[in-house]
Amino acid sequence: MTILLSIFEYLGIFVFAISGLLTASEKRLDYFGGMVIAFFTALGGGTIRDLLLNTEVRWMESSSLIFTALSGAVIGIIFKQQLIHLKRTFFIFDTIGLGLFTILGIQKGLEFQQIPVTSLFLGLISATFGGVIRDVLCNEIPLIFRKEIYATAGIVGGLCYLGFFLVGWNNEFTLILGVLIIILIRFLSVMFGWKMPLLSKEN
Amino acid sequence: MTILLSIFEYLGIFVFAISGLLTASEKRLDYFGGMVIAFFTALGGGTIRDLLLNTEVRWMESSSLIFTALSGAVIGIIFKQQLIHLKRTFFIFDTIGLGLFTILGIQKGLEFQQIPVTSLFLGLISATFGGVIRDVLCNEIPLIFRKEIYATAGIVGGLCYLGFFLVGWNNEFTLILGVLIIILIRFLSVMFGWKMPLLSKEN
Amino acid sequence: MTILLSIFEYLGIFVFAISGLLTASEKRLDYFGGMVIAFFTALGGGTIRDLLLNTEVRWMESSSLIFTALSGAVIGIIFKQQLIHLKRTFFIFDTIGLGLFTILGIQKGLEFQQIPVTSLFLGLISATFGGVIRDVLCNEIPLIFRKEIYATAGIVGGLCYLGFFLVGWNNEFTLILGVLIIILIRFLSVMFGWKMPLLSKEN
Repeated sequence: MTILLSIFEYLGIFVFAISGLLTASEKRLDYFGGMVIAFFTALGGGTIRDLLLNTEVRWMESSSLIFTALSGAVIGIIFKQQLIHLKRTFFIFDTIGLGLFTILGIQKGLEFQQIPVTSLFLGLISATFGGVIRDVLCNEIPLIFRKEIYATAGIVGGLCYLGFFLVGWNNEFTLILGVLIIILIRFLSVMFGWKMPLLSKEN
Repeated sequence: MTILLSIFEYLGIFVFAISGLLTASEKRLDYFGGMVIAFFTALGGGTIRDLLLNTEVRWMESSSLIFTALSGAVIGIIFKQQLIHLKRTFFIFDTIGLGLFTILGIQKGLEFQQIPVTSLFLGLISATFGGVIRDVLCNEIPLIFRKEIYATAGIVGGLCYLGFFLVGWNNEFTLILGVLIIILIRFLSVMFGWKMPLLSKEN
Repeated sequence: MTILLSIFEYLGIFVFAISGLLTASEKRLDYFGGMVIAFFTALGGGTIRDLLLNTEVRWMESSSLIFTALSGAVIGIIFKQQLIHLKRTFFIFDTIGLGLFTILGIQKGLEFQQIPVTSLFLGLISATFGGVIRDVLCNEIPLIFRKEIYATAGIVGGLCYLGFFLVGWNNEFTLILGVLIIILIRFLSVMFGWKMPLLSKEN
C-alpha cells in the first residue's frame, strides 16, 4: 500500500510539472523559463510547507523527486501538442495529486506537532501553492482563487481526515479515505458544475 | 498595558484581513480566494519575518491569531457593502497596526540578536509585507511602493525606537512612544497630503 | 585572491541593486518602492538560497552587504539619467555577478552537504532569483524566463564546476574557472545572438 501511495505521489508530481509547462507555454517563455515554472508548480507547494515547518525541504534531498519534476517538464516540451488532447487523463491525475498532497501535508503537519488547523493549512499549501507560484510567475491571478471547487474539496476531505485523527482513528485506511473523499468531491463538483460563489456577484 | 498592546495587535490583524478581503473583492475571485488573500494580508508580514529569523512562524502555534484573521475575512465577506463606508475607522486601525507591527517586529529582531538595521527591516517587513503579498496575488504592483507616506512613517518611528534602544533606554514606554510617532507621522502625512517623490518625475 | 572575489561580489551586488532601481523607475513607483525593489534584486537570490538551506540569511548579519545594496539604490536614484547610457559597463558587472553568484551558491550548497543537482539549483537561485523577485514585484513575467542565454550560461559553467568537484578537483582555481566559463558563454551568446528556443514557436 505504501508503494501504491508512493507511485501516485510521483505521478502527481509528474502531472503537476506538465501542467506548469503547458501554462508557461501559453506565455512567450523559453525552454529554461518553462522548466523553472514546471519545477516550482510540481514542488513549490511542498517547499513552502517545509519552510513553514522549519525543516529540510524534501526535494532538496531527493534526486528522484527532482528528476520526476524535470522529466514532466521535458515530456511537456516534447509532446506539448499531443498532451493538450489528454485533458481527461490530466484531470484524473491532477485530482489524485490534490487529494494525496493535501492529506500527506496534513499528516506531516501532525507529525511535527502542529495544531489541527495549522496542519490543515499545511496540507492545502502542499497541494495548491505550486499552482499559485506558477500563476504568479506567469503574471496571472492564481487560478485556484477563482476556479470551480478545488481547494474546497481539499478542505472537506482534510477536515474528515482530521476528525478521524482527533477521535484516535489514524491509520493507512483513514489516510486513503481522506484522499478518496477529496477525489470524490472534486469529481462531483466538475460533473455537476458546482462553483464557489464569487466575492463580487453584484457586479 | 501588555493587555492593551495585545488587544490592538488583534485589532490590527483583524483590520488587515478585512483590507485583504476588500482588495480581493475588486478582482473576480471566489470566497476561497478572498479568504486566502485576507489571511496572508493579515499574517504574511509576520510569516516572512519569522522565516528570515529562522524561528517558528508565530501564527502556526496560535489558533487565536488564525481565527482572528479568518474572522476578519468572514466579516469582510458578509459586510462588504457596509464596510466600504467605514474608511475612516479602517484608516485608524490600519495606522495603529502599521505602528504596532513595525515596533514589535523591531523588538523581535533585537531579541534575536539581529543588528539594528536588520531589526528595522524586520519591523517594516512585519508591518508591510502582508500588503505586498496581497497585491502580488491580486496581480498588482504593491501599493506601498507608490502610495503616500506609509512605510516611511514606519522607518522614522522605527529609527527613533532604535535610537532609544541604542542609548540603553528600552522599556514599555519607548515601545509605545515609537508606535505613537509612526501613527502621528502617518496622520500628518495624510492630513497634509505629503507624498514620497516618484522615481520618474520627468515623464 | 579571496580579496579579489570579495570585491567582485560587492560590485555584483551593487550593480544588481542599480538594475533593480532602473527597472522600478520604469514603473510609477516612489523612492521607497524603488529602494525595496533594488534591495531584493541585489540580495533576494541569496535570501532564498539561505532559506532553502535552513541557515542564517547572509545579509542579515552583514551591515556591509546591506549598505552596498542600499548604496546601489541611492546611486541609481541620483544618476538615473546618466546610468542608462552605461549599458556596456552594467553588462560586464552583471555578467561577473551572474558567474560569481552561481559558483559561490553551488559551493555553499556543497558545503551544506547538498547533493550536486540541488547545489546547482542553489547556485542558479542565488544568481537569478533576485531578478525574478524584481520582476514579480514590478508585475512582469520574469525576464530570465524569456531572455537570451542567461541562466543557461550559469547551468553550463555550474556543471563544469560540479564536474571538477566530483573528480576531486576543488580549489580556488576551479572556482575561478567556473566563473570564467559562465562569463565567456554569456559574452559569446550576446555577441552571436544565441537564444533559447521559445516554448511556443509555432504561434
